[in-house]
Parts: sequence; C-alpha cells; structure tokens
Amino acid sequence: MTRYVNRSAGSNRRGFFSTAASLAGVGLGVVAASRTSAAEKGNNDGHAQSFIKPGATILFQGDSITDAGRNRESAGEANSQPALGNGYAWLAASQLLVDRPDDGLKIYNRGISGNKVYQLAERWQPDCLDLKPDVLSILIGVNDLWHTLGGAYDGSVEKYDSDYRKLLAQTRQALPAVKLVICEPFVLRCGAVDDSWFPQFDAYRAAARKLADEAGAVFVPLQAMFDAASQLAPPERWAKDGVHPSADGAALMAHTWRKMVDEA
Amino acid sequence: MTRYVNRSAGSNRRGFFSTAASLAGVGLGVVAASRTSAAEKGNNDGHAQSFIKPGATILFQGDSITDAGRNRESAGEANSQPALGNGYAWLAASQLLVDRPDDGLKIYNRGISGNKVYQLAERWQPDCLDLKPDVLSILIGVNDLWHTLGGAYDGSVEKYDSDYRKLLAQTRQALPAVKLVICEPFVLRCGAVDDSWFPQFDAYRAAARKLADEAGAVFVPLQAMFDAASQLAPPERWAKDGVHPSADGAALMAHTWRKMVDEA
Repeated sequence: MTRYVNRSAGSNRRGFFSTAASLAGVGLGVVAASRTSAAEKGNNDGHAQSFIKPGATILFQGDSITDAGRNRESAGEANSQPALGNGYAWLAASQLLVDRPDDGLKIYNRGISGNKVYQLAERWQPDCLDLKPDVLSILIGVNDLWHTLGGAYDGSVEKYDSDYRKLLAQTRQALPAVKLVICEPFVLRCGAVDDSWFPQFDAYRAAARKLADEAGAVFVPLQAMFDAASQLAPPERWAKDGVHPSADGAALMAHTWRKMVDEA
Repeated sequence: MTRYVNRSAGSNRRGFFSTAASLAGVGLGVVAASRTSAAEKGNNDGHAQSFIKPGATILFQGDSITDAGRNRESAGEANSQPALGNGYAWLAASQLLVDRPDDGLKIYNRGISGNKVYQLAERWQPDCLDLKPDVLSILIGVNDLWHTLGGAYDGSVEKYDSDYRKLLAQTRQALPAVKLVICEPFVLRCGAVDDSWFPQFDAYRAAARKLADEAGAVFVPLQAMFDAASQLAPPERWAKDGVHPSADGAALMAHTWRKMVDEA
C-alpha cells in the first residue's frame, strides 16, 4: 500500500494529508465497530477463528477470468491493484482489505489468460508453492473444454479431472495446512457459448465439484450463481461473450466468493 | 423476473429452457446448502430473524448515486434491472435476489439525480410512503452541499439536518415498522472535489450519522469505506469525479451495504 500512498501525496499533498490524518489508525472495521454492536460482532471478533486468519497470504489462481488484465511487472507486490487486475480477484481482495485493514493480509493474483489445468501445473512451483499461500483459490476449466471445441487442444474431462487431482495432491503435499477454495467453472448462454458446449461442460463442472468435496475445499458455485443472475438480467449483462465476466459479473463473483469463504 | 424470462425464451429458446430446467426449484441458496453445512447455516436459517425478512419490500432512495441511470418507465416493477439502474442499488439488489431467490423480496429504486433532502420530501408520498417499504435505504447529502458551492442553492448543514429530521419523522409516523438504513454521504479527493468542500462536508456527514443513531437506523459508513479504499488504489479508481462511483466503487458500496445490513 505504501506505493500508492506516495503517489497520492505527490499529486495532491494537502488533500492527501488531511485524509490521511482523519484515517489514522482507523479503517472501516474500527469506525464501524466503534458505532454499533452488530458491526463489532462482525468486524472485530472471530477473525482469529475465521477461514482467512490475520496475517494470511491469499493467492488467486486461474485463467483469463482471474487474470483480468493484471500487470505482471507488479505481480510480486501484495495488495496492489495493478497486480490484482480488474476482475473478481481484485474486487474480493479490495473488499477484504477495506474490511480488515489491520489484519496484515497479503493478497496475490497469478491467473494467466488462456490457461488450462496442465498449464497451471507447469508453473505451479514459482506461481503457487513458492508463495506459500495460507488460502489458495483456483478457478480453472473453461479453456480445458473451449480449446477442444475448435480442435486446438486434445483435451477431455478425464484429463481435466486427472490433471486437477494431481495438482491438488502436489499442493497438499507441499503445503499441508493450505486452505483450498475451488471455484466452479461457468459459462453463460450467450456470445461464444452455444449448444456445442453441452452437455460436455456440465461434466467439467461436476468434476470440479467432486474434487472440491474430496479435497475438503470451499466450493464456490458460480454456475448456479450465474444461472440465477440470468433470470434477473440477460446473460450478456453478466458476461458479454458468455465466458468473461462484465463489471457486474465480477462484482457478483466477488460477492459469492466472499459469502462462501466467510461462511466456511 | 417473469418479464426477463420471456425475453430470454424468445431469443434463445432451446438454450433458455435447458438452463431453466437445470434451475428448477434451485437457486444459489439451495444448491449451496445441499453441499455444505456452512452454506446451510448462512443461506437457509435465520432469514425469518434477519433485518430483511422474507417477503420484504426494499426501497433505495437518494440522488444520482442511487439513480445511476435507472429507467423511469419500469420504476413500478420490482426486481427489474432497468428500474434498479446501474449502481450500488442494483448490485446490492442483484446479490440479494441471487442469494435468496425464493424469499419473495421486492426491490425498488427511486433515486433521482440532483436531489437534495427537500426534493426527497416533495415526492415522498408517491416515491416512498405509497410503496410501503419494510426496509428503506437513503443516501442523500452530497448535493445539499455541492449545489451551495456554485451558489445555485441557498442551503446549509442546519437546513440539511432539519429537513432530513422532518423526513424521517414523517416516515416513521406513516410507516411505524419501517426499518431504516442511512448511508453516509461521501466524497473522494479528486475530480470536482477540492479543498473548498472542507470542513463543511464533514458536518453533513456528522449530521447524517447523528440522525441515524437517533432513528435507530443501520448506518453505512461509506466515507470511511472510500477513505480506506483510497489507500489501496487512487481515488479516481473509485469515483472519477470524486462524487459518482465507478463500477468498482459501486461494487464496494454494495458490499458494505450488504455487510452492515446483514450484521444488523
């Protein structure tokens, strides 16, 4: 966070310092807690017992949906907006950091556009294990099917399942205490997504859910979420091409990610 | 929701019906609950005791930040995206409706761009009392100061306080059981917001907080939230002109609104 504070002070020194003064030692959690007992309950108690403990390192991994235009050059910096991208990972991270400013959370994003499970595996040592995450969130699978539809990739649900299972076993062996969050791969019925995806895609979703159950992971049911959302507004509202979430889609994903993790 | 379902069926009948079939009686709450006991706890128990009870009518009121481009022609329709606009009210509503698809919530937005408190009062009968909300959320105040800075409005914090107090008293008298949510007016230090706003603006914020306390309302501390957010990313990221939230700003507002209301 230091980096950004410096920029702000440079561009608007007087405004910045008066804001900084009013913030001293504050943050949303403390302000809220000083005012209402309900907020106290939610904001200040129980984080030591919560899924994301104070001091936790949190890593988001996946494909373009997680990547969301993140800046590779600042990838080593925790809690940096450019490094976190512009998608659900950034939104979930910003909400966590605003809610818990004093908890010393360190949040990273290492999603890479186009990735399938085997490509996560190829870079797992530097892009996951070396970061020693306490909480690891993975969203992977849409390319594992999508890239087979055009014939560019010789994949199958069996390969997805087997590669994913190996990746999780390797992770558990290297990081026995890691807490896993497995996000359900999803598509919306619009844009690039037509009937040729089904019922195959449902098998990839089912595999992810089964792996989550077996691994004792928190499962984030994003397909059910987007199916329900698509009854409120057209699917294009949530993801124009059926795969990559809009701002509204990313906000809904961040909400459901937080909800499932906070309840775990 | 029926309206949108009809459109979807028209534009992509086969795709829609297979989605609809997989959703039958489902919704995110039920899917999640069938899988994890944690989700069960959060999703299915306690709504009868929650701040927003099953069957509740929820009304968002305010100025342009609430309005957010909503369609006036569909304003009478509950849970309609066009009627709910494109801001925090829509995002909070969509998240509530996706989380609680079977709870019969009815959500409206009647924010109008440019409004100050006295302008809410002028339209309070048709745009609030006649809707008989069970939960009423108000975000008002930025124009009460802003329009005085250019000399177009002869307002003061005393008038803001007095007008707002009268409005709340009138509301309580007409709707004795209404649950109030009062959102803190906020600005970010960028765009149209310069030093001429301070310290006056802080007095408007303090007045809103005091009124919330007196009225027993849930208070949503949006200034503290945006102050904390502005340490993570430049204020322009959250509201380019310092007043009107970006997509990220609206997502953060929806998150904090839900958080404060869910904890109440």
